[in-house]
Amino acid sequence: MASVAYGPEAIVLVLAAAGAAGLGFTLPVTLAIVLLLAVLIASYRQVIAAFPNGGGAYAVAKERLGHRTSLVAAASLIVDYVLNVAVSIAAGVAALTSAFPGLFGCTVWICLAVLAGITVLNLYGIRESARAFMAPTVVFVLGICAVIVAGLLRSEPATVATGAVVSENARTIGILLLLKAFSSGCAALTGVEAIANAVPSFAAPKVKRAQRAEVALGVLLGIMLIGLATLIEKFSIRPLDGTTVLSQLTEAALGHGIGYYIVQFATVILLALAANTSYGGLPTLTKILADDNCLPHRFAVTSPRQVYRFGVLALGISAAVLLVASEGNMNALVPLFAIGVFVGFTIAQVGMVRHWLATRIPGWRWRIGLNGFGALLTFVALVVTTSMKFTEGAWLIVLVLPLLVVGMERVRRTYGRIDGCRGVGCVPAEPRATETAIVVPVSEVSELSREALSAAMSLGRDVTALHVCLPGENITVFTKEWEAWHPDVRLLLLEDGDSTVGGPVARYVRDNFAGRRKVVVIAEVEPPAGWNHVLPSHRSDELERELRKMNDTVVCHLRVQTA
Amino acid sequence: MASVAYGPEAIVLVLAAAGAAGLGFTLPVTLAIVLLLAVLIASYRQVIAAFPNGGGAYAVAKERLGHRTSLVAAASLIVDYVLNVAVSIAAGVAALTSAFPGLFGCTVWICLAVLAGITVLNLYGIRESARAFMAPTVVFVLGICAVIVAGLLRSEPATVATGAVVSENARTIGILLLLKAFSSGCAALTGVEAIANAVPSFAAPKVKRAQRAEVALGVLLGIMLIGLATLIEKFSIRPLDGTTVLSQLTEAALGHGIGYYIVQFATVILLALAANTSYGGLPTLTKILADDNCLPHRFAVTSPRQVYRFGVLALGISAAVLLVASEGNMNALVPLFAIGVFVGFTIAQVGMVRHWLATRIPGWRWRIGLNGFGALLTFVALVVTTSMKFTEGAWLIVLVLPLLVVGMERVRRTYGRIDGCRGVGCVPAEPRATETAIVVPVSEVSELSREALSAAMSLGRDVTALHVCLPGENITVFTKEWEAWHPDVRLLLLEDGDSTVGGPVARYVRDNFAGRRKVVVIAEVEPPAGWNHVLPSHRSDELERELRKMNDTVVCHLRVQTA
Repeated sequence: MASVAYGPEAIVLVLAAAGAAGLGFTLPVTLAIVLLLAVLIASYRQVIAAFPNGGGAYAVAKERLGHRTSLVAAASLIVDYVLNVAVSIAAGVAALTSAFPGLFGCTVWICLAVLAGITVLNLYGIRESARAFMAPTVVFVLGICAVIVAGLLRSEPATVATGAVVSENARTIGILLLLKAFSSGCAALTGVEAIANAVPSFAAPKVKRAQRAEVALGVLLGIMLIGLATLIEKFSIRPLDGTTVLSQLTEAALGHGIGYYIVQFATVILLALAANTSYGGLPTLTKILADDNCLPHRFAVTSPRQVYRFGVLALGISAAVLLVASEGNMNALVPLFAIGVFVGFTIAQVGMVRHWLATRIPGWRWRIGLNGFGALLTFVALVVTTSMKFTEGAWLIVLVLPLLVVGMERVRRTYGRIDGCRGVGCVPAEPRATETAIVVPVSEVSELSREALSAAMSLGRDVTALHVCLPGENITVFTKEWEAWHPDVRLLLLEDGDSTVGGPVARYVRDNFAGRRKVVVIAEVEPPAGWNHVLPSHRSDELERELRKMNDTVVCHLRVQTA
Repeated sequence: MASVAYGPEAIVLVLAAAGAAGLGFTLPVTLAIVLLLAVLIASYRQVIAAFPNGGGAYAVAKERLGHRTSLVAAASLIVDYVLNVAVSIAAGVAALTSAFPGLFGCTVWICLAVLAGITVLNLYGIRESARAFMAPTVVFVLGICAVIVAGLLRSEPATVATGAVVSENARTIGILLLLKAFSSGCAALTGVEAIANAVPSFAAPKVKRAQRAEVALGVLLGIMLIGLATLIEKFSIRPLDGTTVLSQLTEAALGHGIGYYIVQFATVILLALAANTSYGGLPTLTKILADDNCLPHRFAVTSPRQVYRFGVLALGISAAVLLVASEGNMNALVPLFAIGVFVGFTIAQVGMVRHWLATRIPGWRWRIGLNGFGALLTFVALVVTTSMKFTEGAWLIVLVLPLLVVGMERVRRTYGRIDGCRGVGCVPAEPRATETAIVVPVSEVSELSREALSAAMSLGRDVTALHVCLPGENITVFTKEWEAWHPDVRLLLLEDGDSTVGGPVARYVRDNFAGRRKVVVIAEVEPPAGWNHVLPSHRSDELERELRKMNDTVVCHLRVQTA
C-alpha cells in the first residue's frame, strides 16, 4: 500500500526527461501498470488458495520447481526485504523533507537514525499490533482519496510548489522511454506479494480473508494510481529537487494547510511501518532457510524474547549500506526494488503453472492460462526493467542474486557434509568405554596446576604432566619447585625450538598413546567479566587450536573464576 | 637524523605567519633549539652510562621513579613510536610530492600505501640490516652538507620555487610567536632518545660507542639545523603549499638538476627507514610491557619468525588512523610528536637526578646539576609546546597519554587478580582424585552421540545422558530412537520453556551432584576449514558460554572432523 507513495513519482521522474510532452504519457503508462496489477492480483488469489501455509514464491518454487529455483526465489525475497526497508525509509524521509525543506541537507543522517531506531526496537522484540497499522493506513488512504477528489474538482492548483526542476531537456518520446517509465512505475506493485507470504497470520477462514484482502488491496492501489496519474497530467506536475510528487499533488489539491501536513505525516508513518514489515518478514525467512540448512544456523537462534537477532541485525546493516550508497535518494533505489519483485512474481507464476499441471483440479486449463499469462507479463517486465536500469544500479541486483544463491548452495553442501559426519538417521553401534591416557600441560607450580592435576586424576589413572621448555627459560627453577611439591604424577619435559606450546603438546599427544582415548586437561583462570575478550589466555587458546584438529582427542577445560 | 627533514620546516611555517620580518627570526630560534640539543646530548650521555641495558626513559623511570611514572614514560614512548611512523611517512611523501607535484592530489593514498607496505614487510619479519641504513643516511648527510655549502657560496638562488604561499598576513612578532616557533622546531630533537633506547644493539664497548654515536648525532644535527636556518634567511624561503622547505632550499642551492633529485630521493628513503625503526621499537616495548602485565599478553606472542605480530598490527593501524585524520599533512603531526618526546626527556632527566642522589658516585653534584638543568629545560619546553599547540591537536596527546596510563594500570590490576587465582609462588596441596559425575547433552541419536557417550564412559562410570526438549519438538520421535539404540546409559529428559539448551543443562549440573567433580562432555562436528567462523555449532557455543561460568565443572570437547 505504501508503494503508492513512490510509484507515481518514479514514472513522472522518467517521463520528465522527455519534457512536457513526455509527462502527458503518465496516465497511459499508469493504466498499463494497473492492467498488470489486475493480472497479478488474479493470479495471486490462486497462489493463496493453493498454498494456504504462506511462503509465497519460495513455498511455490520449493514444492513445484525444485531446490535451486526455490533458492533463487528466496534470494529475490531477501533482496526485496532489504530494499523495502531502504526504499520505505528513503521515501518516508523524502516526504518529511518535502514538508520541512530545512531538513533536506541531512537526509542520509535522518534515514540512518530512523533505520537504527527501527532496528533497535526489533532487536528488543517490540511487537507491532495490527491496530498500530490500521490508523495511519486509513488516514493515508482517506487522505489520498481526498487529494484525488479535491484535485479533480479544482480547476486551478491551490498552490504551485517552486524549486529546481530535476531535468527538462526536451527529447523525443520513444518506446524505450515509455518502457523505462513503465518499469520504474512497477515498483508500485511490490505490495502484492506480501499478502501471499503472510496467509497464516490472517483470521479464519484464512484463505477467503487473504484473497479478499488481496483484491481489496488491488482495487485500492489501482484507484489511487489512476487518480494520482490523472492529477499529475491535470496540474502538469514535474519532478522537483527536494519535493516529492505526492507532496506537490497534495499541495495542489488541498493547499498548504492542515490537510497537507496530515497527508504528509500519514505518509511518513505508513512508510516507517512498511519498513518495519521487513523486520517481521526477513528474519522469519532466514530462519526457515537456516532450518533448511541454506544459511548458517545462527539465523535460527532466538533471543529470550523470540527475536531472530542475527536476521534483524543483518537486515539493518544491509539496509544501512544501501541508504549510505544511494545517499538516501529513493529514486536511486526504487528501480532495484522492482527487479527482485518481478523475479519472485515470475517464479511464483511458473510454479503455479506446474502446480496446475500436476494436480489437474477442475478448471485447471483456465488457471494455467491465467498464471501462464501472468508469468509471461512479469517475465517481460523483469527483462525490460533489468535492461532499462542495468547501468543505473540493476547490475548490483544481477550480481547479488546469483552470489546469494551460490552462497546458500555452498552452505547447504557444507552442512550436508557435517550431517554426514554426525551420522543421523541410522542406529549407531553401542557406545563403549576405552582405556584413557590423560595429559596435563603445566607451565608452573601453582594452585591452578593442582586443580588441573586433580581433575585429571579424577578422570583416569594414567596421568602425565607435560612441561614445554620455552627458549630462554630457566628449567631448573621449575624442576626444583616441582620436586618440592612432588605430586603423584609422572612429569615429562619437552624441549621446543619455536616458543610455542600448542605444537609440541599436540605432536606428543598424537605420536604416543596409540589405541587409547587421549584426553588433554587445560586449566585456566577465567578473566573477570568484560575483560574476557581483551585478556584471553593465549597459551590455552593456541593449544586448543592445535588440538581441535585432532579427531580422537578430548580437550577438557577447567576454568577457575576470579574472585 | 631524519628529523632534519621536518624540523626547519616547522619553524619556518610558524614564523611565516608574521610575514617577512618573522622569517628573520629563523636563525635565532634555531640557535636556541641547538642549545637545548647540546644540553640533551650531554645528559643523555649520562643516561647511556647509567643504564647500559637500554630502555631509555622507561628503564630510568621504572628503577628510580616508581611504577606509575614508568607507565607515563612507556605511554609517551608508545605515542612517539606511533607518531614517528606517521610523521616520517607524511614527510617522506611530502618530499616525493615536492619532486613530483603531479602526485600531490593523492597524498593520503600514497601515505597509506607506504604504511601498508612497511607493515606487511614487518609482519612477515623482514629484517633490515644496519647496512641498508648506512647508504641513504650518508647520501642524505652529504646531500644536506652540499646544499649548505653550495647555498652559502651562491649569492643568488639557482631557481626560485613558485606556488601559493601558505599564509602571509603581517603580524607583530611577539614572544608567543617565537615560543611557538621554538616548540615546533623542537620536533627536530626527536632522534636523541632513540640511541639511549637501543644501547644493547651497539658493538662492544657498548657504552663508549653509544655515547660517541650520541655526540656525533648531536654535532651533525646541530650543524645541519644551523646551516639550513642560515640558508632560509639568506634566500628568504617561505612555506609554499605542496613544496617542502627542504625541497626549496635544495632547489635554490643546487638548481633543479640531478643533485636535487638525489637529495630528494635520499630524503624519501631515509624517512621510510625512519618509519621502519618504530616497527623494531614499538613491538619490543609492548612485549616488555606485556611481560610486566601492563598490556594484554597477546603482545608477547611471537610468530614462528619471531615477530610480535600484534604489536606490529597495532602500530600500523594507529599510524593509519593518524595519517587519515591529518590527511597526510606532516605539519599537523609534527607538533604532537614534540610533546611525547619532551615527556620522555623530562622523566628521564628527573629519574637521573634521583639516580645520582641514590648512588652518589664521584662527581654526583655536577651530574645532578646537568640533569637537573636538562629536566628544567625539557619541562619548560614541554609546557610551552603543549600550551602553544593545545588547540592544534595537542589536546589529543593530553587525552591519550592518561588514557593509556590508566588502561595499562587496569590491565595490570586485572592480571594481578588472575595471578592471585593461579596461586603462583607457594607450594600447593597434593592433587587428589575425587568421584566424578559425567553429563552428556544429546540432541539426537547419531554417530556423534555415540562418540560422546563412548568418551564419557571412558572418563568415568556415572554417566547421564541429558536431552533438552525444545518447544515444538516431538519428544516421542527421540525416545523411540533412543529405545531402539538402548545404550547402557541413564537418559534424562529436561523440559524447557525458552528454547535454549545451555541454561537448562547448566542449571541441572549445578543443582545436582553436590560434592562430586562435574564433567560435561560436548561432541560436535568441526566444520571444514574456512567455514569454521561462519558455521559454528551455536548450540555447543551457547552451552560452553553457560558452563564456563561454573567454577568446578570440567567441560570436555570432542571434535569429529569432516572428511
